[in-house]
Amino acid sequence: MSSTAGQVIRCRAAVAWEAGKPLVIEEVEVAPPQANEVRLKILFTSLCHTDVYFWEAKGQNPLFPRIYGHEAGGIVESVGEGVTDLKPGDHVLPVFTGECKECDHCKSEESNMCNLLRINTDRGVMLNDGNSRFSINRKPIYHFVGTSTFSEYTVVHVGCVAKINPLAPLDKVCVLSCGISTGLGATLNVAKPSKGSTVAIFGLGAVGLAAAEGARIAGASRIIGVDLNAKDLKKFGVTEFVNPKDYNKPVQEVISEMTNGGVYRSVECTGNIDAMISAFECVHDGWGVAVLVGVPHKNAEFKTHPMNVLNERTLKGTFFGNYKPRSDLPSVVEKYMNKELELEKFITHSVPFSEINKAFEYMLKGEGLRCIIRMEE
Amino acid sequence: MSSTAGQVIRCRAAVAWEAGKPLVIEEVEVAPPQANEVRLKILFTSLCHTDVYFWEAKGQNPLFPRIYGHEAGGIVESVGEGVTDLKPGDHVLPVFTGECKECDHCKSEESNMCNLLRINTDRGVMLNDGNSRFSINRKPIYHFVGTSTFSEYTVVHVGCVAKINPLAPLDKVCVLSCGISTGLGATLNVAKPSKGSTVAIFGLGAVGLAAAEGARIAGASRIIGVDLNAKDLKKFGVTEFVNPKDYNKPVQEVISEMTNGGVYRSVECTGNIDAMISAFECVHDGWGVAVLVGVPHKNAEFKTHPMNVLNERTLKGTFFGNYKPRSDLPSVVEKYMNKELELEKFITHSVPFSEINKAFEYMLKGEGLRCIIRMEE
Repeated sequence: MSSTAGQVIRCRAAVAWEAGKPLVIEEVEVAPPQANEVRLKILFTSLCHTDVYFWEAKGQNPLFPRIYGHEAGGIVESVGEGVTDLKPGDHVLPVFTGECKECDHCKSEESNMCNLLRINTDRGVMLNDGNSRFSINRKPIYHFVGTSTFSEYTVVHVGCVAKINPLAPLDKVCVLSCGISTGLGATLNVAKPSKGSTVAIFGLGAVGLAAAEGARIAGASRIIGVDLNAKDLKKFGVTEFVNPKDYNKPVQEVISEMTNGGVYRSVECTGNIDAMISAFECVHDGWGVAVLVGVPHKNAEFKTHPMNVLNERTLKGTFFGNYKPRSDLPSVVEKYMNKELELEKFITHSVPFSEINKAFEYMLKGEGLRCIIRMEE
Repeated sequence: MSSTAGQVIRCRAAVAWEAGKPLVIEEVEVAPPQANEVRLKILFTSLCHTDVYFWEAKGQNPLFPRIYGHEAGGIVESVGEGVTDLKPGDHVLPVFTGECKECDHCKSEESNMCNLLRINTDRGVMLNDGNSRFSINRKPIYHFVGTSTFSEYTVVHVGCVAKINPLAPLDKVCVLSCGISTGLGATLNVAKPSKGSTVAIFGLGAVGLAAAEGARIAGASRIIGVDLNAKDLKKFGVTEFVNPKDYNKPVQEVISEMTNGGVYRSVECTGNIDAMISAFECVHDGWGVAVLVGVPHKNAEFKTHPMNVLNERTLKGTFFGNYKPRSDLPSVVEKYMNKELELEKFITHSVPFSEINKAFEYMLKGEGLRCIIRMEE
């Protein structure tokens, strides 16, 4: 039992007071965990596009003040009533979506879209009592996707916490909380390219390059990267680069010509509707599988001639790489520990917590892939 | 060696001289098979919608005079040069699509869309020399999809002939040449419902009811049939019937409400684009798989919100139930021989060859499912 268990903890958190304005490091109060909750000491967190998207609040209902952050590694400080799977000192990754282990999705081998703990970007409070565990002078500060890792301490539902190998370096494996697992799992769990096959990846940000990392691990012989901007791809196993702007025909035709009728698998990581359609139409008839990962605009419409489907193509979607957070993430960490999965190449920047706004600047400029934020300066 | 081998055979065939006009039983000359061809004595044939569709020639390039027919059972009369897999006397099913066993599709475990022998409805001649094997007074009569089974003898590429158990009754298993295998395979090979699961079938003609038969064989606990017309479903394992006309909301919503969020699998057998979209949107998120079978209008467009895909639904298409004609049809015949698969319920009519136009009348009136045409009166 830690000395802080059951007590309010005062610590630093980066609070977003307004949409699009720099975060402010504040002293916040973090209430103890309630039933089925755990309080975590965050050691490392990283910035993902989703944080920036909701911080900018251009399309959604704004919810401020709020503590963002959902890719992180930390240690359990204390646990609430009924928590038996975790104990203080456990090394963990908090996850923006959960696994209650009791709903029909959790019981299905095919789904990871838990009914109880599926991502909810609108909710800024805990499920248990509908309140926030964060406050400043008793005024609540909202949570973000149940994780709020831009704080030295945070409270998370036990179903959103993956217990991992305590030997794993948290400053590296923290990136497995979201983007890297999303891309990696899209390829390894859903597209499942066979050894020697050809894979196209649309969008070469962190998620797309993680999908390419999955294709490299699976032994794909050709990994065709598609992006509107040239990228430094040396470390990522991408064997060919296609910029759709360089051609005066649809990129699906370009890829089909490059690959004698189409790729074996494609993974779409941009969320752009035209890229989704191209990703589907560039897979080979008879056996091609396209996997959609990127989140579309709310008014987007996926359109294709149904013969493209009838000709034995498959279109699938995935959420968080089809990983069940608690059941599956520990084994992804083990892939890194076994040197099967490379993570260092995704980590291009690192800043102390006090400079968290620099991480936002790097992302807004499109610079690098992941910036690690060190909570202990 | 049969006494007719190498000779022109004169026999009866039902010739379509003009689009939509009754067939005329004529004496035709059937040339001997050339390299990689076999000549078959047809004993039983049945009528499929595809024959009627191309006989009506409302949307396609008309090609007349022509001998239709592609669901049949027969016996090998003689074989051409290079044919080693078949010999005179073998019991066979001719198939409208083929399996060369050498192309990348035939070598793939996932595809049955042979590059060489994939269905071609425009071609009315044999691949070997670009000529027809049928003639009347030396004037050629065109073939149809490489089978032309409305003739006492026909010539077929060896890659389009499945050798089956000689004990199988050809008057029953002839229906496995096309429609029944298409529906059955869509469920058993592609949708793959698990035991106890819920399946929706769109379109309750022969193909759809064969898809339902697949669901029955797979042990589905609920088989929801969807059709615009009430059907006699007693024998087909369909447990619930939904007529979209009975509701003032989209049928995918009706099915979703009936099934607590959607079915486990759906199979679309109408070719109607709205039914295709409904079939996709009525499967459950997390694990639902929709399989498209029905052939769409050439200007059709499949449209859905991409979140329907992202939420872990799968859309697949299939052609001939993903069966490879030569490799897989013999085992489908065995399913019938083992009493696992019921075929009798699909055979609602039978006529002698001289009355073949009656089979067209039954189909045009929407009466029954399959009409067997007996070549020997």
